[in-house]
Amino acid sequence: MAKLQTKRDFPVSNARRYLEPGPIVLVSSAWQGRTNIMTMGWHTVLEFSPSLIGCMIWEGNHSHEMIRESGQCVINLPTTALTDTVVRIGNTKGYEVDKFAHFGLTAEKAAKVGAPLIGECHANFECRIHDDALVARYNFFIFEVVKAHVAPSPKHPETLHYTGDGVFMVAGKIISRRAKFKPEML
Amino acid sequence: MAKLQTKRDFPVSNARRYLEPGPIVLVSSAWQGRTNIMTMGWHTVLEFSPSLIGCMIWEGNHSHEMIRESGQCVINLPTTALTDTVVRIGNTKGYEVDKFAHFGLTAEKAAKVGAPLIGECHANFECRIHDDALVARYNFFIFEVVKAHVAPSPKHPETLHYTGDGVFMVAGKIISRRAKFKPEML
Repeated sequence: MAKLQTKRDFPVSNARRYLEPGPIVLVSSAWQGRTNIMTMGWHTVLEFSPSLIGCMIWEGNHSHEMIRESGQCVINLPTTALTDTVVRIGNTKGYEVDKFAHFGLTAEKAAKVGAPLIGECHANFECRIHDDALVARYNFFIFEVVKAHVAPSPKHPETLHYTGDGVFMVAGKIISRRAKFKPEML
Repeated sequence: MAKLQTKRDFPVSNARRYLEPGPIVLVSSAWQGRTNIMTMGWHTVLEFSPSLIGCMIWEGNHSHEMIRESGQCVINLPTTALTDTVVRIGNTKGYEVDKFAHFGLTAEKAAKVGAPLIGECHANFECRIHDDALVARYNFFIFEVVKAHVAPSPKHPETLHYTGDGVFMVAGKIISRRAKFKPEML
């Protein structure tokens, strides 16, 4: 079981550091006294500043309505320590259970949004809806990251990258080519 | 140097198999007799059928104009065998050089679009613009994958996942939890 992670403030304009690699994330939401958690693999960074993240959240998910109504959510980054929890959350429909209690996860108070942080995740990105222009057509939300929290170690945690069909790729090993980048490209 | 990859047709509705994990991709384009290649890390799957992919392509890239004018591109999936080529392409502005010739890459004829496939990549996704509603505001293109080509082996190639700052995470190792998924979630 994953442990609670102690985190530090992290610059929102650098959310790409954790989200651009394309990991499966857990999205937590709150609305009218209830909370929910869903797994999400369809997301992309859109801008550094404001820090924008685009996310496809299917309208069949209860989280869709909760996020739309509250205008907020938290994008939480699980590591491979949470693999089975990620799968179990993906298998469970919202409202059936209190997912925090059911999966032994810790709901921590966020700084700027009503949705809770998942304490066991490596990083948490507090988000507000920035633009809902494509929600009706594609279920595509554009969020602004308004506050970020990241565990300082490990520097490169193992993350899960979903391929469909029950199979995750694991990223963790790194390759640095920093010396080969033009400085303006970093 | 990466070798030419022999590919087979692949169902477009399953493009998520290769793109959902969030790899760095190479986007090739063609317009008025010229071709171009750019690196891209900001993309997401949006729908299975039609097979939709959303991509943030900065307007400062020459590729942006070429894709907008031609309405087409190819999303090519490089493996770690192409790491240094990926970095060099990211460092090079379009129109300075013929990138296929300069980087020793093979331009193969696509089936349904004018942009060339990159022969050395593991997979190629031929795309047409499906919706440009967010191009002006966010440089966000929604493409439909109209034809896909994938090398049958290796089944799980090592892919590059960019974190910024010159550092890539490598995904390749896999974890299967297929047996733990509810069938309707697969």
